[in-house]
Amino acid sequence: MLSNPYKHKVLNFSGGVGGSKLALGLSKVLSPSQLSVVVNTADDFEHFGLHISPDLDTLMYTLGELNNKELGWGLNCETWNMLDSLGQLGGETWFQLGDRDMATHLLRTQYLREGLMLSEATTRLCKSLGITHEILPMTDYRVRTKVQTKTGILDFQEYFVRHKCKPEITGIHLDGIEHAVPQEHFAKRLMDPDLSALIIAPSNPFVSVDPIIKMPGIRSLMMDSNAPVIAVSPIIGEDAIKGPAAKMMRELNIAVSCGAVAHYYGELLDGFVIDEQDAQSAKQLQNSGLKVLVVPTLMHTIDDRIRLAEEILNFSLTMK
Amino acid sequence: MLSNPYKHKVLNFSGGVGGSKLALGLSKVLSPSQLSVVVNTADDFEHFGLHISPDLDTLMYTLGELNNKELGWGLNCETWNMLDSLGQLGGETWFQLGDRDMATHLLRTQYLREGLMLSEATTRLCKSLGITHEILPMTDYRVRTKVQTKTGILDFQEYFVRHKCKPEITGIHLDGIEHAVPQEHFAKRLMDPDLSALIIAPSNPFVSVDPIIKMPGIRSLMMDSNAPVIAVSPIIGEDAIKGPAAKMMRELNIAVSCGAVAHYYGELLDGFVIDEQDAQSAKQLQNSGLKVLVVPTLMHTIDDRIRLAEEILNFSLTMK
Repeated sequence: MLSNPYKHKVLNFSGGVGGSKLALGLSKVLSPSQLSVVVNTADDFEHFGLHISPDLDTLMYTLGELNNKELGWGLNCETWNMLDSLGQLGGETWFQLGDRDMATHLLRTQYLREGLMLSEATTRLCKSLGITHEILPMTDYRVRTKVQTKTGILDFQEYFVRHKCKPEITGIHLDGIEHAVPQEHFAKRLMDPDLSALIIAPSNPFVSVDPIIKMPGIRSLMMDSNAPVIAVSPIIGEDAIKGPAAKMMRELNIAVSCGAVAHYYGELLDGFVIDEQDAQSAKQLQNSGLKVLVVPTLMHTIDDRIRLAEEILNFSLTMK
Repeated sequence: MLSNPYKHKVLNFSGGVGGSKLALGLSKVLSPSQLSVVVNTADDFEHFGLHISPDLDTLMYTLGELNNKELGWGLNCETWNMLDSLGQLGGETWFQLGDRDMATHLLRTQYLREGLMLSEATTRLCKSLGITHEILPMTDYRVRTKVQTKTGILDFQEYFVRHKCKPEITGIHLDGIEHAVPQEHFAKRLMDPDLSALIIAPSNPFVSVDPIIKMPGIRSLMMDSNAPVIAVSPIIGEDAIKGPAAKMMRELNIAVSCGAVAHYYGELLDGFVIDEQDAQSAKQLQNSGLKVLVVPTLMHTIDDRIRLAEEILNFSLTMK
C-alpha cells in the first residue's frame, strides 16, 4: 500500500496476460476491499475432460505472484513431463499443460463436478494461493468464444493456441452469451453507488472484453453507473501490445489504431488511456467527448504496472 | 527368445506388481503370439475424474520396461510436481499421481470418453508404448472391489493406498461381478483348444485373482479347459511376498500358508508352485491330488523372473 491510499472502489475488467499486468499494478495500490477483478471466461474450454480457465489462471498466478516471467504465461518452476509422456503416448499436445498447472485444472474440475460454481471454485483456489484481492469470473454460466474463419468455425483455444491465430477471421461469436447471468458479486460491485472507477484492461476488445460487456444487462449497468468507465488501449501505433487484436481488426475491416478501439467501445467510455506514442490521437479523441490520458502504457516491470495503475486512478479522480 | 522356444500358448492371470514380475519373465520366454496376460481391473477407480487402472498400468509399464525399479511401482524418470502443487492447493494427495503417469490416466480417460472399451484403450496405449505381448483387462465391464472393514465399507484404493491396509477386514465384495462379461479375447483364449497352460500369478487371491476367476462363466471354462491350471503361491512361509494377502487371510480366519492358498483355489488347480522355503508342504499338497513344483519363487532380478517362468512352463509340460 502506498502512503496515500486511494479511497477508490475499483472494478477492473480483464482478459489474460495483458490484463493481469494492470491488475497486478492495481492490486499493489488498492487494498482487497477496494479492488475486484472481473475476468473473461469465454476462452474457457474442456480438454481431456478438464475445465480449463486460461484467463482466470493467468490472473490467479499473477496476483499470487506465481506466474512464469520467462514464458510470460503459466506458472513459475513449471515442468512438462506429463506433456512429454502424453506426446510419447500419441496424445494431443497442442495445449501446453504444465505439470504444476495440471493441479489447478484437476482441482477446479473436481470442484465443478462436486457442484460448486466456477466463482466458488475460483474463490477456493485463490484462498489456497493466498490471493487476497477478489478475482471474479464474469459469469458462472457457460459462454464460449467461437472464431469464424474462412475455413470454418473454431473454438477459441483451437484458433488461439492450436492454429496460432493464423486462420483469417470473418467474425466472432460468443456462444451462450444471451443466456449468461453476470456473476452475482460482479453485478453487485457494478451497481455499488460507491464504485469510483471501472477500468477496462488493455485486453483484446473482441475476445477478452466483449464477453464481459456483452452479457445481458452489463451495458446498461455500465451506462447507469456513476463511476467513470476508463479503457486502456491494447493498440499502440498500428499494432497490438500482445496477441491477435491488431490482426483481428484488420481482418474485420477495422482500422488498427487506438482511436478505433475507443470508437468500438463507443458511448460506454468516459475516459481512454493511450500510449505516448499515440499522443497525436489525443486531440481527436477529446473532440469526440472523451477524457484522454496519454502515458507510457507498456508494462515491462512491476514498477511500470504500479505507475500505470496510479496514473489511471489519478485520471479517474479528474472525472468525478 | 530362448534358443528352444516353447510351443506353449499361455494365458496368465495377473494382479499388479507381483504378477507383473512373472508376466515379464513369461514375455521374455514366449513370443507375443504365445502369451496373453489377463489383468485384474477390480481395483480400477475414478480419481479427479480420471479412470485409473493400477494393475493394467503396472503390467504396461513393466512389459514396456518403463517401470520404476526404485519405487517398485509406477514409471521410471517420474516426477511429482503436479502432486506437489495439488497439495499446495489443498487437493487430496493420498494417491500418488506422478507427472508422467498422469499422461496415461488422461489419455485412457479420453479414450473411454470417446466411447472406446477399456480393452481398446489398453491396446492403443500398449501400441504407443511398443508393447507387443497382449495385455487384456479381464472385462470391459465395471467391477469394483469393496473392502468390508469393522468401521465400514471402503473402496479398494481407499483401503489399499489411503488407509495403507490398516483397517481390519471382515469381507471382500466384488461389486458388479455378477453382470461382468469377460473380455472377448480373454474368453476366446480360455476356450482355445490349443491353450497349453493357464498360469495364475503370485498375486493376492482375494483382490487380484478372484475378480478374474469369479466372473460368470470363467470357473467352468477353466474346469473345462484341457490346459493345466497352475497357480504360484503368493504366500511364502507365513507371510505374503508383498501386499496385504497374509493380513487379509488372518483377518478372514484363513491359515496363512501356501497350502491354504491351494485349498482356497480348490479344484480349479492342477498344479501349484511353492517356494523352496515351503518344501515341507509339498507332500501334503501332492496327497490332495495336486502336482507341486518347489522352486525359489522370489523374483528379485530379471534372471529370477525368466528362470521362474521357464520352470513353470517346463512344469506345465509334465501335466499334459
